[in-house]
Amino acid sequence: MSSSKTIFFISDGTGITAANVGHSLLTQFPNVQLIKQFRPFIDTLEKARAVVSEINSIYEKSGEKPVLFTTIVDDALRNEISQSHAVMLDFFHGFIEQLEKHWQLPSNTRIGGAHGLENNPAYNMRIDALNYTLSTDDGLGYQFYPEADVILVGVSRSGKTPTCLYLAMHFGIYAANYAYTDDDGQYFELPAALKEQRQKLFGLIIAPDHLHAIRSKRKPNTDYASLARCQHELKNMKDLLLRENIPFIDATVRSVEEISTTIVTQMGLTRRDV
Amino acid sequence: MSSSKTIFFISDGTGITAANVGHSLLTQFPNVQLIKQFRPFIDTLEKARAVVSEINSIYEKSGEKPVLFTTIVDDALRNEISQSHAVMLDFFHGFIEQLEKHWQLPSNTRIGGAHGLENNPAYNMRIDALNYTLSTDDGLGYQFYPEADVILVGVSRSGKTPTCLYLAMHFGIYAANYAYTDDDGQYFELPAALKEQRQKLFGLIIAPDHLHAIRSKRKPNTDYASLARCQHELKNMKDLLLRENIPFIDATVRSVEEISTTIVTQMGLTRRDV
Repeated sequence: MSSSKTIFFISDGTGITAANVGHSLLTQFPNVQLIKQFRPFIDTLEKARAVVSEINSIYEKSGEKPVLFTTIVDDALRNEISQSHAVMLDFFHGFIEQLEKHWQLPSNTRIGGAHGLENNPAYNMRIDALNYTLSTDDGLGYQFYPEADVILVGVSRSGKTPTCLYLAMHFGIYAANYAYTDDDGQYFELPAALKEQRQKLFGLIIAPDHLHAIRSKRKPNTDYASLARCQHELKNMKDLLLRENIPFIDATVRSVEEISTTIVTQMGLTRRDV
Repeated sequence: MSSSKTIFFISDGTGITAANVGHSLLTQFPNVQLIKQFRPFIDTLEKARAVVSEINSIYEKSGEKPVLFTTIVDDALRNEISQSHAVMLDFFHGFIEQLEKHWQLPSNTRIGGAHGLENNPAYNMRIDALNYTLSTDDGLGYQFYPEADVILVGVSRSGKTPTCLYLAMHFGIYAANYAYTDDDGQYFELPAALKEQRQKLFGLIIAPDHLHAIRSKRKPNTDYASLARCQHELKNMKDLLLRENIPFIDATVRSVEEISTTIVTQMGLTRRDV
């Protein structure tokens, strides 16, 4: 029936919040063909007017109002944008007003304030955690395990590194990882470095055919990538996790966001991003 | 005047969207003492009722209604949560209704749909990009530069790796990085590996005293961390960037989110997360 619909993501900062909410909303309309236009750092009236012209010219050509997802905090800029021929979904303004009313407190509506570095301790925590994760990646640096909040265990390519990086970058969590290999012996007993940190261990498993596909992409037609070896390693891994009573999750159909959130919840970890 | 205020982040998925919008809103109230409670994966009526009890008991004890930030899509679950003694800020429902009305299309309100893996191509792109960035980190793997969308250049500890990881994880951008060291000679001419990729280069600089502080934390009292050497390397770097006409940004007071968004905008990169 209808052609592509244009969405503008407009922010006076990075626009990451607008993109984040916008994407989530749009998954509720999976069959709509979308053209997405990102306009971050719209922090002057001049830039706002340029975006308004762009929006209006799309409206004039298509006859359909574009949708604007915005998180602009400044009143003057928001008013300017709202003059366009568009449907504006404002992810900030109404909620800030609700909070002001409920708490009986004025808000601090500064341009870019929502995305800046003013919350330095939390930001520094995230970068420190990221550096920690990078320095301990893939079984290196056992001497840093005492500082870990969580240590992921799993076979090669089961998703440990992306999960650790996400935990660090978003939650400021010190996440290390320990890679198991194809040495059967190591599955009989936890290595000393892990035994001392038992309560921090969390396992990742994955379906053998999925692991086979991931490894084949990287090292095609090798023993390492063979389905038989994937099955064998994963069986060893799962037996170990069950025997040692280590909590674990199946990463096969879960995103890093879902795996990370599950780990934080199940392990009762403290988020340092807040 | 008032004591701490309790905020609940409630979602039937990971709650990452609720946390993201919520944090941005709360930066507008910097002086409010907050207690943040994260309740992800509230995907059954039973779990919803448990959260409602928790909210109501806080209200009864404190006499002040907690604030709920929610992104619950399912009507029955949202109704259950809305029965609590709280001020509910719903980041989804009203906007989905607005889009349904404007587009004259029904939405696909599935539990967890907003955060799931159904958008597989974009998700896989992000993980592929992350693996790419990890494999090319810190000047390794020049043979992969032809596949890069962007190659960051800068001195050691100027923020290249966190920025590359963010670009990859969030925008699905293939971001490599090239580390300059204290060898004066290399600043006279771009190495062959970079020359061939000239149009992909983007520089990071940073204030010398900031770099000195970062390096001192890692390797205190070394020549590497000395202010003199930081000044010297950064001068060389900046001269090179200006002479070669390579775009660059000062990372000193910018978050990885801001740096990454600026790079995408200035380089006209295509986001693969959408």
